[in-house]
Amino acid sequence: MKIVTISRQFGSGGRELGKRLADELGFDYYDREIITSIAQAQGMDEGYVEKALEDHAWQHIPLTYGRSFASGAVMQSTQTSLLVEQKRVLDGIAKAGKDCVIVGRDADVLLADQKPFSIFVCASMDAKVRRCMERAAEGENLTRKAMEQNIRRIDKARARSREMISDAKWGQGGSYNMTVNTTGWEIKDLTGAVADFVRRWYARDGKA
Amino acid sequence: MKIVTISRQFGSGGRELGKRLADELGFDYYDREIITSIAQAQGMDEGYVEKALEDHAWQHIPLTYGRSFASGAVMQSTQTSLLVEQKRVLDGIAKAGKDCVIVGRDADVLLADQKPFSIFVCASMDAKVRRCMERAAEGENLTRKAMEQNIRRIDKARARSREMISDAKWGQGGSYNMTVNTTGWEIKDLTGAVADFVRRWYARDGKA
Repeated sequence: MKIVTISRQFGSGGRELGKRLADELGFDYYDREIITSIAQAQGMDEGYVEKALEDHAWQHIPLTYGRSFASGAVMQSTQTSLLVEQKRVLDGIAKAGKDCVIVGRDADVLLADQKPFSIFVCASMDAKVRRCMERAAEGENLTRKAMEQNIRRIDKARARSREMISDAKWGQGGSYNMTVNTTGWEIKDLTGAVADFVRRWYARDGKA
Repeated sequence: MKIVTISRQFGSGGRELGKRLADELGFDYYDREIITSIAQAQGMDEGYVEKALEDHAWQHIPLTYGRSFASGAVMQSTQTSLLVEQKRVLDGIAKAGKDCVIVGRDADVLLADQKPFSIFVCASMDAKVRRCMERAAEGENLTRKAMEQNIRRIDKARARSREMISDAKWGQGGSYNMTVNTTGWEIKDLTGAVADFVRRWYARDGKA
């Protein structure tokens, strides 16, 4: 069974790359599906689950903080069950045994036993801002500065989240099998290049 | 003209990858040749030049430090001329206009105007130690711990050296076009995968 995981900087095109890669390799693709599963299992709203897992606000909640202790504890316990459920969903995907691409969710760490081929996707700040601008809903007028802050904030949360469960730092080359910088590529061209790389990984000698 | 630069962690196999990549792509290859050129131009011993540039000891020399000021200044001025000469040699390679692979020397930063395709090569500490052990001269018996310290020390110097001339951090995915982790690969198999990736980069759409 082959699992390819994609971790990415916000705005780098990592999700598009993951989707296209799954198509090109003929693999299953998991991204939002994981959120949906968690929400169903926990009887919660999808949007809430996504926000709770992506904001990683829980990391800021001290174990005790005076009068607010109770609400903090409730918050923590919700977050904990979401994280446990997330691990359960990922294990379920692995157990199904079908080749797949998984975007986000620290799947490379949580499924390390399965020895996934892990990819980190990044881009220059300019390229990320451009991509976010193209993607922005009509009427949504963030300044460039606000957009950069947004990108930094989200990536910081992703880094913090990963580093709570792994010594391998987010975004450091050594933490992944391969890191690609999308700057200067059309994602469709890059997809072919990455797909070939992945194929060669699974066809290689010395699979130790 | 195509320039591929290789930056690497000590013991990662980056040099071997660079050499094989040049062979596979039919590109010229530069590594020690650069040290040789600098040494000849400066009328210095090759070993001295290499040590001076690789140890980066000069980075620790404060601009003034009491009684030792004179020797510090001499040291600094030697280092400065070596760095200037290094830049001159790299510019000469670029001016020659032949496709090439350049290993080390911060060539991706120093030749940024030429828009090289920059690769960072890394590996797990275990894999690096194993490679260093295989490579060690007979009778050279470093403990594992000493070897790890050695690897960390050299990489720290490389990081410091790069970060003096660039904001793009050493070893961070975003600082390079591509980062490959050699762990689990035979370098010969990895070479084919990287060569294909490089070919696709030069054949791609949207060369902005």
